[in-house]
Amino acid sequence: VVVAAGSGTRFGGAKQFALLGGRPVVAWSVAACREAVDHVVVVLPPGMIEESFGADLAVTGGASRSESVRNGLAAVPPEATVVVVHDAARPLARPSLFRDVVGALASPDVAGAICAVPVADTLKRVAHSSVDGSSCVVETLDRRALVMVQTPQAFVADVLRRAHAGGGDATDDAALVEATGATVRVVPGDPRNLKLTGPDDLTYFEHLLGAV
Amino acid sequence: VVVAAGSGTRFGGAKQFALLGGRPVVAWSVAACREAVDHVVVVLPPGMIEESFGADLAVTGGASRSESVRNGLAAVPPEATVVVVHDAARPLARPSLFRDVVGALASPDVAGAICAVPVADTLKRVAHSSVDGSSCVVETLDRRALVMVQTPQAFVADVLRRAHAGGGDATDDAALVEATGATVRVVPGDPRNLKLTGPDDLTYFEHLLGAV
Repeated sequence: VVVAAGSGTRFGGAKQFALLGGRPVVAWSVAACREAVDHVVVVLPPGMIEESFGADLAVTGGASRSESVRNGLAAVPPEATVVVVHDAARPLARPSLFRDVVGALASPDVAGAICAVPVADTLKRVAHSSVDGSSCVVETLDRRALVMVQTPQAFVADVLRRAHAGGGDATDDAALVEATGATVRVVPGDPRNLKLTGPDDLTYFEHLLGAV
Repeated sequence: VVVAAGSGTRFGGAKQFALLGGRPVVAWSVAACREAVDHVVVVLPPGMIEESFGADLAVTGGASRSESVRNGLAAVPPEATVVVVHDAARPLARPSLFRDVVGALASPDVAGAICAVPVADTLKRVAHSSVDGSSCVVETLDRRALVMVQTPQAFVADVLRRAHAGGGDATDDAALVEATGATVRVVPGDPRNLKLTGPDDLTYFEHLLGAV
């Protein structure tokens, strides 16, 4: 399931359709998926599903990221035993990363597997003052046990379906699976598997694509 | 105090001396500082202080980042009432960011001010198994109250001197000041004020410098 249903308010337009090396960002993401999985469902904004960007099927997204994933999940063939979710905004994900997260599901106690990278910056918790609108530091986090999560994320299909069955919204699918008490394994992500955030990123991504 | 004493093991060489648009990275950082403060001390690796990269004074760093800051702090004129600490690896910091953190010290209850940006990625706490070396998710953090910290960071000079007096080591200076119980204000950072991490970043940074 490639999630490409965002409106891209921060980007100034739907970033997943911006051209990267002459090809829409989402098409890169679908192509990387395709090399590692059997069937690709792409989730697109309303009114855009005439074009599938290389996926087997295009469906319409919902009001939140999790709702969009649920729409994609509903279109996954029922016989699928593993479902991989990937954000279209990460067009630099290599097929090997998809294979790594799927491979981690081989352990019988593992219900999900995500890729993640160490946190390089200092993280702090802040509190906002409603009096003067200022923000102050509450604490500096110990970043050594923290990771920054990427996609793709792979799940035992039934576990992911159950995790999404109750509705709910989270910034990633693993959080919903974690909430069911299931075990989510973490495998090394790729520092180059960046999320497209602003228009400036496109030049850098093209540079990285040339270097890959 | 511009901290440029790292050995750059991850970068494959001291990244602060890599050329960015024909000029060493550290020289960009010193130049940005200089536009906003009266006196710049640069902290360099042992054996490199013949060249000051545009700073007023170059001193030798220590075994850790905090020790390097202490060496720089010892060289700051005693009459200074405000000290700004900046990592040389952030050559894209604009002078306005320095003025913002210094300006935040105007409130009498504020002892330090840092710049920071919202966390865009999902963060999770992981636990490593000593049995099979695998990592699993312990929890997904609520990122809404979290920020990623940048430099420059500005401090009331006496408070910073006291915070460093006990030795200690932290990933940023604000953490040492927070540990004294003093208030550290957070002002909006700049998404473009990126930390140079790998050699690949240089091309992107040059692109951003052209666009600034």
